[in-house]
Amino acid sequence: MAVSTGETVQYYRHIQNYNIVDKKVTFNPYGLTIEVGEGENLLRAALQAGVHINASCGGEGVCGKCRIILESGELDCPRSGLLTDEDWDLGYRQACQCRILTDVVVRIPPESLLDRRTLTRRRAGIGLRPSPIDIAALQEEGLYNPAFKKRLVNLSPPTLTDNVNDLSRLEAGLAHQHAVESLTLDFFLLRKLARLMREQDFQVTATLDFSRRRFRSPHLTNVEAGDTTRRHYAVAVDIGTTTVWVQLLDLAKGEILGHAADYNSQMSYGDDVITRIVFSQKEQGLQKLQRSVASTINHVLHRLLKRHKLGVEEISHMTVAANTTMTHLFYGLDPKFIRLAPYTPTAGSIPLMRARDLGLEVPDHVFVYSVSSVSSYVGGDIVSGVLASGLYKEPKLTLFIDIGTNGEIVIGNHQWLACAACSAGPAFEGGGIRFGMRATEGAIEEVTVNPDTFEPMLLTIGMVKPKGICGSGLINLLAALMDAGLVLPNGKFRDDLDTPRVRPGDSGREYVLAFAENTQGDQDIVLTEADIDNLMRAKGAMFAGYLTLLESVGLSLQDLEQVILAGAFGNFVNIDNAIAIGLLPDLPRDCYHFVGNASLLGATLLALSREMLAEERRVAEMMTNFELSETPGYMNQYIAALFLPHTQGEYFPSVSERLRAAKG
Amino acid sequence: MAVSTGETVQYYRHIQNYNIVDKKVTFNPYGLTIEVGEGENLLRAALQAGVHINASCGGEGVCGKCRIILESGELDCPRSGLLTDEDWDLGYRQACQCRILTDVVVRIPPESLLDRRTLTRRRAGIGLRPSPIDIAALQEEGLYNPAFKKRLVNLSPPTLTDNVNDLSRLEAGLAHQHAVESLTLDFFLLRKLARLMREQDFQVTATLDFSRRRFRSPHLTNVEAGDTTRRHYAVAVDIGTTTVWVQLLDLAKGEILGHAADYNSQMSYGDDVITRIVFSQKEQGLQKLQRSVASTINHVLHRLLKRHKLGVEEISHMTVAANTTMTHLFYGLDPKFIRLAPYTPTAGSIPLMRARDLGLEVPDHVFVYSVSSVSSYVGGDIVSGVLASGLYKEPKLTLFIDIGTNGEIVIGNHQWLACAACSAGPAFEGGGIRFGMRATEGAIEEVTVNPDTFEPMLLTIGMVKPKGICGSGLINLLAALMDAGLVLPNGKFRDDLDTPRVRPGDSGREYVLAFAENTQGDQDIVLTEADIDNLMRAKGAMFAGYLTLLESVGLSLQDLEQVILAGAFGNFVNIDNAIAIGLLPDLPRDCYHFVGNASLLGATLLALSREMLAEERRVAEMMTNFELSETPGYMNQYIAALFLPHTQGEYFPSVSERLRAAKG
Repeated sequence: MAVSTGETVQYYRHIQNYNIVDKKVTFNPYGLTIEVGEGENLLRAALQAGVHINASCGGEGVCGKCRIILESGELDCPRSGLLTDEDWDLGYRQACQCRILTDVVVRIPPESLLDRRTLTRRRAGIGLRPSPIDIAALQEEGLYNPAFKKRLVNLSPPTLTDNVNDLSRLEAGLAHQHAVESLTLDFFLLRKLARLMREQDFQVTATLDFSRRRFRSPHLTNVEAGDTTRRHYAVAVDIGTTTVWVQLLDLAKGEILGHAADYNSQMSYGDDVITRIVFSQKEQGLQKLQRSVASTINHVLHRLLKRHKLGVEEISHMTVAANTTMTHLFYGLDPKFIRLAPYTPTAGSIPLMRARDLGLEVPDHVFVYSVSSVSSYVGGDIVSGVLASGLYKEPKLTLFIDIGTNGEIVIGNHQWLACAACSAGPAFEGGGIRFGMRATEGAIEEVTVNPDTFEPMLLTIGMVKPKGICGSGLINLLAALMDAGLVLPNGKFRDDLDTPRVRPGDSGREYVLAFAENTQGDQDIVLTEADIDNLMRAKGAMFAGYLTLLESVGLSLQDLEQVILAGAFGNFVNIDNAIAIGLLPDLPRDCYHFVGNASLLGATLLALSREMLAEERRVAEMMTNFELSETPGYMNQYIAALFLPHTQGEYFPSVSERLRAAKG
Repeated sequence: MAVSTGETVQYYRHIQNYNIVDKKVTFNPYGLTIEVGEGENLLRAALQAGVHINASCGGEGVCGKCRIILESGELDCPRSGLLTDEDWDLGYRQACQCRILTDVVVRIPPESLLDRRTLTRRRAGIGLRPSPIDIAALQEEGLYNPAFKKRLVNLSPPTLTDNVNDLSRLEAGLAHQHAVESLTLDFFLLRKLARLMREQDFQVTATLDFSRRRFRSPHLTNVEAGDTTRRHYAVAVDIGTTTVWVQLLDLAKGEILGHAADYNSQMSYGDDVITRIVFSQKEQGLQKLQRSVASTINHVLHRLLKRHKLGVEEISHMTVAANTTMTHLFYGLDPKFIRLAPYTPTAGSIPLMRARDLGLEVPDHVFVYSVSSVSSYVGGDIVSGVLASGLYKEPKLTLFIDIGTNGEIVIGNHQWLACAACSAGPAFEGGGIRFGMRATEGAIEEVTVNPDTFEPMLLTIGMVKPKGICGSGLINLLAALMDAGLVLPNGKFRDDLDTPRVRPGDSGREYVLAFAENTQGDQDIVLTEADIDNLMRAKGAMFAGYLTLLESVGLSLQDLEQVILAGAFGNFVNIDNAIAIGLLPDLPRDCYHFVGNASLLGATLLALSREMLAEERRVAEMMTNFELSETPGYMNQYIAALFLPHTQGEYFPSVSERLRAAKG
């Protein structure tokens, strides 16, 4: 099929009918245009153009997933109840319902790419996207200094009286022209060296790795014919349990070119690290998981390269950050003992590894550098956060938090770092909560409760009828219920109120967020006392973690000067509400900072900064790991934290004030 | 088929006939016994037992190749003309002609394994086999110090309060128990580390490589469960253009366990380095050659391991020596520019390479260390000779010679080394000589000529009727013809003699070594004046090479203090005769030394001596290469050497004396 990007291509779909195909349809953001006959169905036109729009009802118009935005031109399109007024005014249409009347330009909104949409959704300017790195700022700090450098070498061709081998000729050139002495090199480049040196009459560009600390000299990783010094790229990868992010870096210009993401295809073998470890113990399980994540990286990387019109051979190296289990699975290391007490990973720092040997579709010369992990549950993603936030160089006493199934915490400053993983459980990811769900369409994320009527005001992701509650929604809901006086400090609902919203249920009393007729399902969406118990246990585990780490170094909450929140959760959570339920410490709001996807940030910094690449292991080793279950005082702290916000109210002065204000 | 080693196994070949199978046949050297019926054919019994005996006439008894030696028992065997009296008395029989009468023990002689026999033939105590290395002497010199060491580490199992990762635990153990600090390691061992550490309750044996000069610390290459310090093996390989030798070393005991060899299967793509380089330029040619030599090494290695009952996982590393072309082909490096002026190899020293990545069937942890080469035609085999002979540490001015198609020469001492390749041509391998042949059965190797009758006395390899003349035979023949006064100093036959042995032929006059009726063919075997011309050019190129190298450093032949002969040729050549024809310099015979297969010796020493492994590159760099064609004076020296023994008789005082004595 003849389809091109950014230009018009004739497309004869019904040539046998001599249809006149004179209507142009342009699909943005791809800039892809095809010509179709008048009256053609828009979804069919998209299919013809090879543009994917999710549509799961077969075109009947009932699923509402094939939403596009009409940017110009005319479509014949009935208005269905699946589109709100606001949608309609914004140009949203259901592609399967549209007939093309004139030349049109339509845009495929991210959410019509189904699952992938949640990877890139934004809210209030904060998204799951990687935080932008300010390279100019890095340069000012003297940290923009990629370990990989390209060097142009002009050599004289060999003669009978000067016929030293090609490698020695190149080494001499590097020594004379760039003062690089006694370098080491990777075998594989020898296989192409003779050809490359002769391709541009003995002018070559050498790629040197200045990071390998244990060598006295740089390591020659690649040689290209001619002058390629202006084309030099690196790839940073964050392997999340759920999502894999790949970021493309232009090291010649000092620019971040772009990023792409996709779900980690290991998801089909289990949602979380524990189920993946269990799967890895099956016959061929580890190999399957390893190949699975490699294929996701290949897929995302090649999509990204294509978008930026780069050849894979122009990449000099890859950097990777991930939690300890994902790191083990990516490298094909048996994660068995991560799960079994006493929880020992195979290694903290992984030696250099040829990317190709891990199943990555890149040339021989590409090696993988990964961020070291500290322990089984404080991984390279957290070390990345410490690196990226500069915590290890920070004089202020700082708390670093990444909340997920395992909430990881780091406390310290430039002199010392203590860290731990809190078994918070999956409550903040919607797990163990009756109507908990991931942050996808239909999840209630914003909620307030009228303190007089006890009626809720809900906002869902995608602004559709609610299906359930996501993690940040649960925190907002619990805080709202506290504000409205519906939930007591012990996590129980008041039983003296005359409202249909609070009623007895299977698991204690429950609050009705939405009655069935207003939901996407056929059940009332409720929050039960059992759910609140789970949330209290989760936030209690985190809070007890902060206190225990602080106490183990002789400090207290009062000594904390700032808090850094990392990860998706950190980006979406309402700080006030998280403090209100006792999840985050009660510090002035300007003490809170966000680093977004710290794992990808760390991987990116490794590629941009020789110092980071050389120091990451030292930073990981600087972080003292505490197994909280073995740390004296933790259990007491945990039990004391099973209260809203806490049994010791003095930890949360601003919450008391807030509750007083809410009541007043 | 039930056959076992060293014990009797019932074998029912004709069970349907109820034959009584009560005669035991034992095949040595395998110690393999089977039972057969009385009257069974011995060759068929061998086939049944899986014992290979070459037999190319299908059992008719006319090829004479299936010779075995009867050690005990009775065979019904007709005496054919293919067995001499001496053969018969020694117990030789033709297996295909034998019927088994009683229990018998037979031995398969090496020559019945056809081609392989020439690899291991011996003569006068000198064979093509590797020279024995005297490990005790190495130890006395302080050179027995393998770079690879095994270290037993007893670790305490992890607990919840000490759950550092496995690698850090091992590193700490090595630091405390063996003072090994900040080691580096190979990624692949991590994949098995967790399992291995737990297999013997955290007792492991670490294999450390102390050779990697550029690291400050040893490199951890392998970890095994429990105490394996008494089992530690290495493999040394010599990749010859014709033959591949593999030697197995016991590093725990300090013993050479044994060796095995086979033809380099690249032979099917061409006999010499030039034809192989030509083949490498064809589609997939390089890959085919690379895989071909890898398969030969695999084959020989696994045969050797089986013989010594060793597992391939017990090998810690491999060392390889070869000429520059063979090195390129083994590593899959394009040898194109070795053949084209100005003759530049890709590299002199090859970085460490995982053996598995070269197609060798060994575990991940096995890396290949190879001896550096100096130039396109002075390769790692010659550097090996310099290492093995100790030439680079020798105060005496020494000439090192390896004669083949390219005669390589090295001159120097512990202070300087000069080297060159002489394009001697294939004359000394029988090439370009009308009846020249390789040193296989039927090749005339010893010859004298009666100065009165001009009748020759011949001795062939295998003592059979002659087929042609091998290289060492040609030298002996030429010297004999000089002694007999038949050949003049200009290489022409005297034309004034009345003997049927000297006659005019197609290529000038010729000497008849054997008349057709006494040969295996139907032609007279002769040496022609054109042959003598070729021999003079070959020896002239060598001799001019010595003189040119000496002159280029301001020395002369008189300054030479010793000569070291390497290679197969060096082992078989008669020194006196080689001097007589002007191939070798006229030094007292006790100045001559032999090192045999110097290439294998060098590879072996790399495995046995950390110093050698660390120094081989330095030694190669110490060797200054001369392109003789570009060296002033070489052509004049070459022309002056086209004489028997030389235009300047004073270079060969002992030859003049010998010729006088022969005449007298």
